[in-house]
Amino acid sequence: MTSAQRPSGRAPDQLRPIVLQRHYTCHAEGSVLISCGDTRVLCTASVEEKVPPFLRGKGEGWITAEYGMLPRATKERTQREAARGGQGGRTMEIQRLIGRSLRACVDRGALGERTITLDCDVLQADGGTRCAAITGAYVALVDAVRQLQAKRLIKKDPIFGAIAAVSVGIYKGQPVLDLDYAEDANCDTDMNVVMNDGGGFIELQGTAEGHAFRNDELQALLALANKGVSELVALQRAALAA
Amino acid sequence: MTSAQRPSGRAPDQLRPIVLQRHYTCHAEGSVLISCGDTRVLCTASVEEKVPPFLRGKGEGWITAEYGMLPRATKERTQREAARGGQGGRTMEIQRLIGRSLRACVDRGALGERTITLDCDVLQADGGTRCAAITGAYVALVDAVRQLQAKRLIKKDPIFGAIAAVSVGIYKGQPVLDLDYAEDANCDTDMNVVMNDGGGFIELQGTAEGHAFRNDELQALLALANKGVSELVALQRAALAA
Amino acid sequence: MTSAQRPSGRAPDQLRPIVLQRHYTCHAEGSVLISCGDTRVLCTASVEEKVPPFLRGKGEGWITAEYGMLPRATKERTQREAARGGQGGRTMEIQRLIGRSLRACVDRGALGERTITLDCDVLQADGGTRCAAITGAYVALVDAVRQLQAKRLIKKDPIFGAIAAVSVGIYKGQPVLDLDYAEDANCDTDMNVVMNDGGGFIELQGTAEGHAFRNDELQALLALANKGVSELVALQRAALAA
Amino acid sequence: MTSAQRPSGRAPDQLRPIVLQRHYTCHAEGSVLISCGDTRVLCTASVEEKVPPFLRGKGEGWITAEYGMLPRATKERTQREAARGGQGGRTMEIQRLIGRSLRACVDRGALGERTITLDCDVLQADGGTRCAAITGAYVALVDAVRQLQAKRLIKKDPIFGAIAAVSVGIYKGQPVLDLDYAEDANCDTDMNVVMNDGGGFIELQGTAEGHAFRNDELQALLALANKGVSELVALQRAALAA
Amino acid sequence: MTSAQRPSGRAPDQLRPIVLQRHYTCHAEGSVLISCGDTRVLCTASVEEKVPPFLRGKGEGWITAEYGMLPRATKERTQREAARGGQGGRTMEIQRLIGRSLRACVDRGALGERTITLDCDVLQADGGTRCAAITGAYVALVDAVRQLQAKRLIKKDPIFGAIAAVSVGIYKGQPVLDLDYAEDANCDTDMNVVMNDGGGFIELQGTAEGHAFRNDELQALLALANKGVSELVALQRAALAA
Amino acid sequence: MTSAQRPSGRAPDQLRPIVLQRHYTCHAEGSVLISCGDTRVLCTASVEEKVPPFLRGKGEGWITAEYGMLPRATKERTQREAARGGQGGRTMEIQRLIGRSLRACVDRGALGERTITLDCDVLQADGGTRCAAITGAYVALVDAVRQLQAKRLIKKDPIFGAIAAVSVGIYKGQPVLDLDYAEDANCDTDMNVVMNDGGGFIELQGTAEGHAFRNDELQALLALANKGVSELVALQRAALAA
Repeated sequence: MTSAQRPSGRAPDQLRPIVLQRHYTCHAEGSVLISCGDTRVLCTASVEEKVPPFLRGKGEGWITAEYGMLPRATKERTQREAARGGQGGRTMEIQRLIGRSLRACVDRGALGERTITLDCDVLQADGGTRCAAITGAYVALVDAVRQLQAKRLIKKDPIFGAIAAVSVGIYKGQPVLDLDYAEDANCDTDMNVVMNDGGGFIELQGTAEGHAFRNDELQALLALANKGVSELVALQRAALAA
Repeated sequence: MTSAQRPSGRAPDQLRPIVLQRHYTCHAEGSVLISCGDTRVLCTASVEEKVPPFLRGKGEGWITAEYGMLPRATKERTQREAARGGQGGRTMEIQRLIGRSLRACVDRGALGERTITLDCDVLQADGGTRCAAITGAYVALVDAVRQLQAKRLIKKDPIFGAIAAVSVGIYKGQPVLDLDYAEDANCDTDMNVVMNDGGGFIELQGTAEGHAFRNDELQALLALANKGVSELVALQRAALAA
Repeated sequence: MTSAQRPSGRAPDQLRPIVLQRHYTCHAEGSVLISCGDTRVLCTASVEEKVPPFLRGKGEGWITAEYGMLPRATKERTQREAARGGQGGRTMEIQRLIGRSLRACVDRGALGERTITLDCDVLQADGGTRCAAITGAYVALVDAVRQLQAKRLIKKDPIFGAIAAVSVGIYKGQPVLDLDYAEDANCDTDMNVVMNDGGGFIELQGTAEGHAFRNDELQALLALANKGVSELVALQRAALAA
Repeated sequence: MTSAQRPSGRAPDQLRPIVLQRHYTCHAEGSVLISCGDTRVLCTASVEEKVPPFLRGKGEGWITAEYGMLPRATKERTQREAARGGQGGRTMEIQRLIGRSLRACVDRGALGERTITLDCDVLQADGGTRCAAITGAYVALVDAVRQLQAKRLIKKDPIFGAIAAVSVGIYKGQPVLDLDYAEDANCDTDMNVVMNDGGGFIELQGTAEGHAFRNDELQALLALANKGVSELVALQRAALAA
Repeated sequence: MTSAQRPSGRAPDQLRPIVLQRHYTCHAEGSVLISCGDTRVLCTASVEEKVPPFLRGKGEGWITAEYGMLPRATKERTQREAARGGQGGRTMEIQRLIGRSLRACVDRGALGERTITLDCDVLQADGGTRCAAITGAYVALVDAVRQLQAKRLIKKDPIFGAIAAVSVGIYKGQPVLDLDYAEDANCDTDMNVVMNDGGGFIELQGTAEGHAFRNDELQALLALANKGVSELVALQRAALAA
Repeated sequence: MTSAQRPSGRAPDQLRPIVLQRHYTCHAEGSVLISCGDTRVLCTASVEEKVPPFLRGKGEGWITAEYGMLPRATKERTQREAARGGQGGRTMEIQRLIGRSLRACVDRGALGERTITLDCDVLQADGGTRCAAITGAYVALVDAVRQLQAKRLIKKDPIFGAIAAVSVGIYKGQPVLDLDYAEDANCDTDMNVVMNDGGGFIELQGTAEGHAFRNDELQALLALANKGVSELVALQRAALAA
């Protein structure tokens, strides 16, 4: 198959430029601005010394996430959810995904009876906001946990491994990595892949937008995702070492 | 790997008993009660001669879905969403999945400017309600479209192919087909697979509950799903031929 | 007065065929599908070991009810209340009526500090859903209480007498029993009568749709209701003896 | 039966002092403050030149009602419904009753395509607020219609007859007329009766609070209601003639 | 500057006729109907033996306010906020202002751990409702506190000084006191001034509707407000001495 | 009066460092990040070719504002308003203030039938967010209008003058300019002043937190505000000239 030109001119297996900016705001225990090309998401991690009712007295902590999009993060202004009276289905779906994904790298017993809330707010959107949110939130989470360790509130590091996410899809017949909005709006198949640094899958969400996809296409997409997540994990490590 | 005993005693690749009961209620254009073991979902298809605002005047129809669970469909009573003041995140996530899945087999131009709403209400839950909903809703959708054809409101059959869904997962280390509640609550990996009758994937949603899963596990799960969906499609055909 | 033909061909004092199907679903302590002609309501009774705040510590139990209608229980699809953001006035009015009616046959001291919630969900509507809900919910309530007695959680039977409900109305000048939708939509007076097995009135709700009704008409309607409730109570007894 | 002393010292068939004060506020087309003893309800009638969607283009008008209670109309402060986020079940039930009752005396064709909204706001509550609201709203409605006639916007008087409402109940074994709060909170049976000036029933809503009531008790209550409504209708006439 | 005629014929520095009617309703600890010309607001003060969560155990009381407008208090009917599903921005802004203003004259330690809620409901609106609410609520508050003192529930009078409010504005180029609706709808600058009886400012809220206002205009407005509040405080004293 | 030390060490009449960063995000017609010390607000201006219902067909445009605070913009995490189900009173009060303030510098006839929405989202809060929002939103508004002019959609510049806002207050007995959070939480009087570049007042909102303030204190505060706004207007001009 000859390669269709991507709108951005990137190679099929090329991520957008990724920047992870720690300590972006000053109050949160972790605060990371992640840029994936023109997509920019502010991820904060907030520690609270309480757990939801279903966990009280069990000696375990909780990791949860909330997602939001500023009204003019998008090309056309979208209505503010607070003004509309509640969160929509897409928002709920995304924040449930972020929460599940990050719980997959946390030993909740070692965290103790406290909650870390990951707020992921999209300042600017150009496709792939949920994957950017997961990748950035992981770094904010680590910063928050380090602060708990520095204060000697927890003994054992509750985080095992790293988590990152990337989208892959079939654009004009070709599997490509890290779709931007121009590709996302015109692709046949779109898949969000959350993986850990051991190459294991945490979440896989694939949707055939145009025609159903076959197992060989799936394999090509997963190989791209694997490459992308490896690079993202390396960038997370570098940011956390800075 | 030796086979762990499933709580139901089923073979790893065995579906629960499936019953598709058409014309279960009398008012809807399509009305199907699907039973997958103890899971029972009433799927109705309602035709309305209007489309949502974003489609007006475009000559295309719309397929959408809503999902609900009766308060005592579950072991413990769950609060009624209407009484709580709105649909929760899980409900929204599921009904978005059902709608997307069924849109994948409909030529919306051929349907014309009308909406078919698939209401999937769980009367009794024992795991796998979203997959049962998709499989049953497909049959209700076909019945509704046949009625439109019988009334000569549409010329060309807008439905291409069949859509069915099944869950697969890794239970006590073994890939199994069609998880019931006892398995779902204790499995390591849980995946909902929506496929068409050509063996193509429509939606793939996998979650690592316990440990991350590897590509070889994924392949085993997809093979099971493929077998399950083939059987479900055959049952849909038989029901529609009755 | 010569008798106007009823749309169903029934005699003026004739109930629709009534079926009470116990154990319709498996999780609830009581679960009854009641069919009154084409009206079908699923009534479940759920026991919870708690009471509302205003009863805490008083040694008394509570009986409450919730009512819902599946979106396509009706000829035209009605919007799902959970999607609309709350229960409407008609729903609230009906569920308050069901709750009050069933509290009238329960010794709440003998029940002890627990709540029984009666969920009445209309699967298919053809008039008289609130009366069917009360008549069916009574049977579900008895089943739930029997289970509490079997588990020796309560000593004294808290239920005294039986409760059933039927609608009566003046259709084309003639008092008739148990209105179906075709009659309900065209009647002059419409009354829902809740009675106990001793012939006492529990609730009386009459509405003049067309012209005001006189006391002699009221007497004729109450006589019909008395006959109908007697038959319903006999059917409840038979179902509970099965 | 010897007469139990009523808390107020009234005879069993005696209404509380009733005052109907027209033109209580200045903006509404009709504005009546009704006092029934210590119960005071402000009833306004507002004319708007539009009808609800289901009536558009049918040449008919609409009568609807809304009911509210000021937070400190009651002994204990009750939460403001606007602050709580919506109207409760009791409010909806009452405002539906008021609307139905007043529609029963209006020729909606003669009214033309306009809506009259009756807002009934309880300034002070001492039992019987819904009946006071209906009795007062009738007077406000007549004032609003008279203004339409004075402006020659309608030709034929759309109001036929008069409507009033009163509560009756069995207090300490004795049927009594027009229950105040002290009686209402302690009565066995409580019935709201809406009648027209021809002695016909418009609405009948009876509830057995303690024990079920018999037909002879019902007859005694209806006789009391008949007497009470006759007196109320005379007071309405006198107020409207002033 | 020659004086523009005010629509009401009042002098520029003349208040509308003010009436403060105490004990307007019977249940509340304080209940005052204030009339400022055609503006009429019912202000009740309700004492509850509890404080909001953020004050629990601190030995301090709380003063809060809620504001509402009856649907037909205005020329055109406005939708009932309870029916619309919540309080609007204007309502929230006003009730926050009333609460802050009255907290400014209360020693919350001396009040003890109890809450006084000031409900200000507009029965009829002709401009200046928020100022009338503050002025009337002060009198209701004093009545409620007096009752607490009479019951010996508090020892030291927690109220220091008096609080009243008035609007001022620039109407047709001239600073005027106490704007009615006709002036309010057509003025260039509109300012609500809350002051105490010592001439100190509690709240100042000025808005340039037409052109920005200068400091000399501000000074003229504040002088008018000072005169108006002095008169209002005298009327409050007279009412409380009656 | 000797000067109390401000927590930040600033002189009483000294603003915090102000930075206005234009084109902060890429989709909005105007997008400005304003930093006032540690307070950072993202202000976007969105142009839509429609007006609210009350302005349709009048040939005038509309300027409106929405305000939000990211959950972890503050020291303690605050609940997301979208998750809580609606905007609170403080949010509504602030966004109404921003909207009114910016409408004061726009000729809405010259703008034509379009709406410009100013979304002000606080990324990091350290006091004075509403004033920062107004000052930043003005720059975003000018950028949006310039784009309309560049596209020749409007002929005449609809913006006259400049608008900026600053808080002033009495901190430990001394009037100070531009309160940060440490001062705001401990000041006696707090005033937000919105002015135009001609030194005219647009909005004045003063609150006595501790004791009532006198006219001479007010004059000192207004002088400080005047100085602060002059500097802010100069910074706006410089930013817009860049």
